[in-house]
Amino acid sequence: MLVFAQFGAGRIGAIHAANLAANWGARLAHVVDVHEAAAASLAARHGALASDALTALRDPAVGAVIIASSTDTHANLVIAAAKAGKAIFCEKPIDLSLPRVDQALAAVRAAGVPMLVGFNRRFDPSFAELHRRIGAGVIGAVEQVIITSRDPGLPPLDYLTVSGGQFRDMTIHDFDMARWMLAAGHEDGEPTEVFAWGAALVDPAVAEAGDIDSCMVLLRTASGRMAHINNSRRAAYGYDQRVEVHGSLGRLIAGNRTPTTVEQADAWAVAAEKPMHFFLDRYAEAYRLELAAFIAAVRDGTPMPVGAEDGRQALVLAEAALRSLREGRPVKVSEIA
Amino acid sequence: MLVFAQFGAGRIGAIHAANLAANWGARLAHVVDVHEAAAASLAARHGALASDALTALRDPAVGAVIIASSTDTHANLVIAAAKAGKAIFCEKPIDLSLPRVDQALAAVRAAGVPMLVGFNRRFDPSFAELHRRIGAGVIGAVEQVIITSRDPGLPPLDYLTVSGGQFRDMTIHDFDMARWMLAAGHEDGEPTEVFAWGAALVDPAVAEAGDIDSCMVLLRTASGRMAHINNSRRAAYGYDQRVEVHGSLGRLIAGNRTPTTVEQADAWAVAAEKPMHFFLDRYAEAYRLELAAFIAAVRDGTPMPVGAEDGRQALVLAEAALRSLREGRPVKVSEIA
Amino acid sequence: MLVFAQFGAGRIGAIHAANLAANWGARLAHVVDVHEAAAASLAARHGALASDALTALRDPAVGAVIIASSTDTHANLVIAAAKAGKAIFCEKPIDLSLPRVDQALAAVRAAGVPMLVGFNRRFDPSFAELHRRIGAGVIGAVEQVIITSRDPGLPPLDYLTVSGGQFRDMTIHDFDMARWMLAAGHEDGEPTEVFAWGAALVDPAVAEAGDIDSCMVLLRTASGRMAHINNSRRAAYGYDQRVEVHGSLGRLIAGNRTPTTVEQADAWAVAAEKPMHFFLDRYAEAYRLELAAFIAAVRDGTPMPVGAEDGRQALVLAEAALRSLREGRPVKVSEIA
Amino acid sequence: MLVFAQFGAGRIGAIHAANLAANWGARLAHVVDVHEAAAASLAARHGALASDALTALRDPAVGAVIIASSTDTHANLVIAAAKAGKAIFCEKPIDLSLPRVDQALAAVRAAGVPMLVGFNRRFDPSFAELHRRIGAGVIGAVEQVIITSRDPGLPPLDYLTVSGGQFRDMTIHDFDMARWMLAAGHEDGEPTEVFAWGAALVDPAVAEAGDIDSCMVLLRTASGRMAHINNSRRAAYGYDQRVEVHGSLGRLIAGNRTPTTVEQADAWAVAAEKPMHFFLDRYAEAYRLELAAFIAAVRDGTPMPVGAEDGRQALVLAEAALRSLREGRPVKVSEIA
Repeated sequence: MLVFAQFGAGRIGAIHAANLAANWGARLAHVVDVHEAAAASLAARHGALASDALTALRDPAVGAVIIASSTDTHANLVIAAAKAGKAIFCEKPIDLSLPRVDQALAAVRAAGVPMLVGFNRRFDPSFAELHRRIGAGVIGAVEQVIITSRDPGLPPLDYLTVSGGQFRDMTIHDFDMARWMLAAGHEDGEPTEVFAWGAALVDPAVAEAGDIDSCMVLLRTASGRMAHINNSRRAAYGYDQRVEVHGSLGRLIAGNRTPTTVEQADAWAVAAEKPMHFFLDRYAEAYRLELAAFIAAVRDGTPMPVGAEDGRQALVLAEAALRSLREGRPVKVSEIA
Repeated sequence: MLVFAQFGAGRIGAIHAANLAANWGARLAHVVDVHEAAAASLAARHGALASDALTALRDPAVGAVIIASSTDTHANLVIAAAKAGKAIFCEKPIDLSLPRVDQALAAVRAAGVPMLVGFNRRFDPSFAELHRRIGAGVIGAVEQVIITSRDPGLPPLDYLTVSGGQFRDMTIHDFDMARWMLAAGHEDGEPTEVFAWGAALVDPAVAEAGDIDSCMVLLRTASGRMAHINNSRRAAYGYDQRVEVHGSLGRLIAGNRTPTTVEQADAWAVAAEKPMHFFLDRYAEAYRLELAAFIAAVRDGTPMPVGAEDGRQALVLAEAALRSLREGRPVKVSEIA
Repeated sequence: MLVFAQFGAGRIGAIHAANLAANWGARLAHVVDVHEAAAASLAARHGALASDALTALRDPAVGAVIIASSTDTHANLVIAAAKAGKAIFCEKPIDLSLPRVDQALAAVRAAGVPMLVGFNRRFDPSFAELHRRIGAGVIGAVEQVIITSRDPGLPPLDYLTVSGGQFRDMTIHDFDMARWMLAAGHEDGEPTEVFAWGAALVDPAVAEAGDIDSCMVLLRTASGRMAHINNSRRAAYGYDQRVEVHGSLGRLIAGNRTPTTVEQADAWAVAAEKPMHFFLDRYAEAYRLELAAFIAAVRDGTPMPVGAEDGRQALVLAEAALRSLREGRPVKVSEIA
Repeated sequence: MLVFAQFGAGRIGAIHAANLAANWGARLAHVVDVHEAAAASLAARHGALASDALTALRDPAVGAVIIASSTDTHANLVIAAAKAGKAIFCEKPIDLSLPRVDQALAAVRAAGVPMLVGFNRRFDPSFAELHRRIGAGVIGAVEQVIITSRDPGLPPLDYLTVSGGQFRDMTIHDFDMARWMLAAGHEDGEPTEVFAWGAALVDPAVAEAGDIDSCMVLLRTASGRMAHINNSRRAAYGYDQRVEVHGSLGRLIAGNRTPTTVEQADAWAVAAEKPMHFFLDRYAEAYRLELAAFIAAVRDGTPMPVGAEDGRQALVLAEAALRSLREGRPVKVSEIA
């Protein structure tokens, strides 16, 4: 039984707490949140205590932490949890600043604690099955990856201004996906160069806030294998999340999921359902499996399926993309890292 | 080069004449139609003569006839063409009366001429491929067949009154399809028993005209293998033509064809195109391949892919269905034939 | 908080107990099973007691029972629970004998307790959405229903001999589905006549056991609206569960669900995943929503979404189908009920 | 009746000649080919003459030419046909050298003859319908275009060495498609900047021949709207030709076409057919409609649907991509043109 302290009682925190409750190998003991009422409510629902951070981290029963608080608190909490010897499940990103990420990772390494970074999409059954098949060789060597990742709607501008920008906040998931797919069953996995274009096509206010809402990114590895990412902050038809991988022997596509399989044929069209609209619906099972994988890896002492280094490397690619966007040229990853 | 006389210069006649024109092994010499202007126009377009029936049948250059005139003329033309020693391509049905069909078939047998009955759907590439795979054993022994066949809209009541009723006019295609699929790679192919329910659900005027516009039919073979047919004279979304076959090793489905592959995702739905609406579009390629198969079989002296007996047997099933509808009980095919 | 006693600690019992555990409005207090070890194990997992039936039913805290024991115990447990004044969630069928069902229903009526019969498929999100849209009028008046329902593999012959036969054991779900779809937004909902054909096409041993493994059934209402059901005890590609409804304005189809959305294109084909293979996977969400609907209806005092009469009526249709199969004629429902 | 002289009696020439034969508004009078036997055979099949170029161009009955000979002859034939006052249907590319293209276009302009450049994909019913819907506003303003274009297999190396390289030979179709889609219903249509990466991932021999076989290209317009192209010279599953367009109100996708609609479900998968393998099958209807559009535009004196400038502009984008590939930076179109 792995006992958890959880930092953050917001939307994603509620998901993790519910998944913990349903997992037979885990128990939630502490919920910590600056919004005390939120912490108290979530703690009560799951038979945990609403605690402060110190209490939670000093509790010797606690073996692991979930860090699901606001992004600016992640790095400090990672460092504190590492020093306290706890296994760490940290929502992405570790931090928006690469030096801060490196500080946190140093603390994790020093403490020798296991750490998972919350790239939940790796645990989506469709993406995971696609990855598994690549590893099994069904499409031969991976040559090109195409990732479509489009949000249903623009978040509030307030959020955008603290988000770190589209690459660090949104594309970072796709950078991780591109790395994961390019590396599947291949030694030359790591992208070494990035090229990015972006614009505020959805709302000019995004440009005024110094950000973009639409982008196309290319990545390539040393041997010339390539990935493409397209992003938009708005998709009228819902949350569009697809991965397509071309290899020497074929092609794999993981498409969108729909709420039901109902198809309606009438005088206008033959219409299927739109993709699941909300990321918490689309990735509900991914969140559940992600936490289960963390718990199993801590229990068994096996490597984390998405390690701290993966969290760092996705941020490096985001930094490279940002530099590419600003300087209008492809940027080598070695310029960043 | 097989030289043709064609009876009928209407809608389906125009299709056959154009397909003849594009076929390198054939030439159209005569067009015969009681509407002389229609015959003249179609003949002119294809460099043929507008002739009367006698002239056409007496022309020693003519090796084959296409009978695409009104249903009530089919049997007489079959008999005349058979006596003239011509190969016969006859649109379905041969006749609405079984005794008349038998007279026509006797003439064909006596003359020893080859005859194809126009069950065009057997030449649809999707249905033909489905049939081919059954024969190749990919789904093992056929156990159940489900045929969905729904017209886009009710024909004029004037037509219905001379059509012979839904079973003889519309379901007859599906009876042939059921026979063809049940027999694929199987000795016990022939349905031996029929059960049918029908109603006028689309328009009460159909009931007043003594016909039905909606039906469900079951057929079974001596060994208990089964087929289901559902028909409607109206489908708001277009012409719905699907065949599904279940065997011991799997399932084959041949679905509808669409004008394009365009899919539109918007705030309402993810919408594909409706099925091709008009039977001449849906089966354009089937008509072309049907005529080519006829020409090839005449040229090579090989058996017709859909013989005169097939035309008769589908009508027998329609008669059995009609008796079942009227008497409210399953009817053995042996009661009819 | 609704407190439950559950009868049956087998496969389906474990599902219901887990769904209870995850439901905030319910608590499992007693587990009863003739296999005491199974009861003890399931009870322990959920903090309940392994009790005998009397104890469970006499516990005044218990407000509801789940009857998920073997079929032959259902009717007695329904009667006992009704007398004890408990709300009843009973797996289908209530009993294989119509008189026994009527006894049970009389007890339920006398006691005035609410009862839900476990036609779980009504709670499948796709079938429920299809039904909802019919009710909303999107396809106009329902004219024809086609239900495809095929199990992945033949159960053990031991099971078949106590199952009541294919109609009472398997088709009964489809009878309920046909009733539900025909009645959606329509006054003339109830099937009044049944015709059935069946055979042992999968395994001759089934015939030796006096049962069938493949069937096609037709149902119709007084006004001539029709439904077709096709069943097989074996589908090489998995659990095939589809509903198609044709109305005056269009067509609705609810298709199979797949484990993932992965599509693989290679030198052989463009291959999607097979349907979910196991009914507990396919209907996992349906079981969860079914129990939630029961709990909500008990709490709110609203009518049960699938009442005791629905359980009876599906059995009536199964009886009519069985008589039709034996007597080779369509059977009026009024002959049975 | 528009009378044609056709240059080129090879594979694509045979397609155009057959399409001419089936078009009621046209007649083929001359076939010209350095392979005299090929010219004679094709001419004989269609009742035309095998002529030399001079004879064909001097024939006053000839109103139009089809240039379907080898690429290196296109420019000279365009110039000669223009001087002779003939309407010109020219296969792409006009030439591999931009100065030569400009010479040809100057001759066309000077002569005032209409000219169509053979970007056949614009006439594919699915792509054309997608374009039509964009113009009709169904997805609002176009923001991102994703073009997937992958050949079934590597052509002979002999061909590659005279092809002008992947961008000029293969991607040129996609450059035209990107321009066409970006411009649909939008003033800011023209890409102003190109970025390209390429590699020989299929066969190292391609690299030795100085070419690439796999590429990813980005294009953008002045206002930041973007397109992505991915190409490979090899797709194990056939000819992969898809276009996806994202706009402010939704998404349109035009997918692959398959030979049939047959779907096979068995113990392995639920398998659909592979895409049509050969470009002449995939685009058979496009070639037919392309020629019909040319004939109609000549007859009616309306603008060509794909003009000479379109042929030039696609080549400009190919040149820009090539420079980007060589110099490792985004290239402005204004640097080329």
